[in-house]
Amino acid sequence: MIECFCLLGAAMPDLSVFQYNAVDNIFSMTVATMGAAALFLYMSRSHVDAEYRPALLVSGIVVSIACYHYFMIRHSWHDAYSLVGAAGYKGTGAAFNDFYRYADWILTVPLLMVELVSVLRLHSAKATSLLTRLVIAAALMIALGYPGEVIADPSRWSERVIWGGLSSIPFFYILYVLWTELTNSLDSQPPAARKLLEVARLVILLTWAVYPIAYALGGTPDALAAKAGTANAADGVVGANGVVGLQIGYAIADMTAKAGFGVLIYLIAKAKSTKTAAAEAYGAA
Amino acid sequence: MIECFCLLGAAMPDLSVFQYNAVDNIFSMTVATMGAAALFLYMSRSHVDAEYRPALLVSGIVVSIACYHYFMIRHSWHDAYSLVGAAGYKGTGAAFNDFYRYADWILTVPLLMVELVSVLRLHSAKATSLLTRLVIAAALMIALGYPGEVIADPSRWSERVIWGGLSSIPFFYILYVLWTELTNSLDSQPPAARKLLEVARLVILLTWAVYPIAYALGGTPDALAAKAGTANAADGVVGANGVVGLQIGYAIADMTAKAGFGVLIYLIAKAKSTKTAAAEAYGAA
Repeated sequence: MIECFCLLGAAMPDLSVFQYNAVDNIFSMTVATMGAAALFLYMSRSHVDAEYRPALLVSGIVVSIACYHYFMIRHSWHDAYSLVGAAGYKGTGAAFNDFYRYADWILTVPLLMVELVSVLRLHSAKATSLLTRLVIAAALMIALGYPGEVIADPSRWSERVIWGGLSSIPFFYILYVLWTELTNSLDSQPPAARKLLEVARLVILLTWAVYPIAYALGGTPDALAAKAGTANAADGVVGANGVVGLQIGYAIADMTAKAGFGVLIYLIAKAKSTKTAAAEAYGAA
Repeated sequence: MIECFCLLGAAMPDLSVFQYNAVDNIFSMTVATMGAAALFLYMSRSHVDAEYRPALLVSGIVVSIACYHYFMIRHSWHDAYSLVGAAGYKGTGAAFNDFYRYADWILTVPLLMVELVSVLRLHSAKATSLLTRLVIAAALMIALGYPGEVIADPSRWSERVIWGGLSSIPFFYILYVLWTELTNSLDSQPPAARKLLEVARLVILLTWAVYPIAYALGGTPDALAAKAGTANAADGVVGANGVVGLQIGYAIADMTAKAGFGVLIYLIAKAKSTKTAAAEAYGAA
């Protein structure tokens, strides 16, 4: 039965009960985190000056989209596995859907650029040029990564490396532009926001680094063999740990890069909101 | 088994796992896009001047309706196919429901006219006359297209052409009216909004062009034969690619014409919102 479905190239490595539940639980926690961040970002708009509200709205949209996709990813996880007694979980033959995560990135990564540029409040012409470059680079990065991600045949390992390499070019371009633009903008920002922007710069660098590492780990010949169901018993364990590690890694990176980053955007907006601060001080006096 | 179901006239061409999932994934992504656009449009109303808020509300309603219909279309897709081992997906005999898309258009196309006319802020008498003509034409266009869309019998191919031709008359009338009215209104718009209105005019022309092309492709004798399950093996492949291409094409066109267009309406409203902009500048001083 399992052997037959393996021909579909959608086989998942066998998992222990602990491994299966670890992934299932982190998906549920990610749904909760993204949903909570969305509520916070939508409703905290009235706590900042009017010009920073669009930045919070877009941040809220990003985590709402991620909340939907993690809900769908968790369902796909349930469909891809079934409990087979004490042996743990075996793949049902249904594919665990990688595309939800890519659909999420296609929609949210450009919006993450919009929320950052929007909270910086750069000169209008500069913001437009910056956003255009960042959004095009983000779309290219995701589109070039996907053909490699879906390769499950170990003999086509080198193709995955090529797609990953191509996808890295816009990836490093985005990191370079964000880093230099954030650094350049620091002088024009109020002192209270400067420290927070330095943290935002660091969060982008650290969380974004997870994605190429996870992509590379998922593309080793062992991992591909496990994905294709052609691995031997020993490789199977490596493959299982690989799948579990990849999913938990992506989930933690997504929570930090979207919900954590959204809260940072709020803190920056709050630090720059002089009018609201003045009104609060006046009211408190 | 499959042959038996074909008698219902609702047979779908066999699909590979990749083909089935490509359509399934684009439907899920469309649900996410429409839902995200709805949240954005509803909540960004407070970021524009009061007179442009109805335009954003109607834009939000359009993508909410589309979100619901793509959710239903995706369910219908799941019901229409089942995984048959390594062979991929075969039709279950349940009809993949074309009507959801037509129900969506009946409700949303007139509302798309309302959101556009509403953001233009034309003279009241002129807006009423324009809207009346556009809404009647939109209803006629959709009502005349549907009888042709449901024809699955290759021998009735010419009937489909006639319905498609009749439906094209109000279609081209709408495009003509929108193009000339948008062009005429450009002079009375503030410079910041002019560029955006030119983009809106182009988005309408390009996205709307997809619908008659998709309709024509779905109505070729080969495609109808595949739909009716009477095609031979070679035709079946053409039919499968046709079905997959048609669904992906409609989904991308709907995302652009509804969610993308909604964001354009927001940007036009924002560009024309002199009071909110003045308040922001005043507050910042």
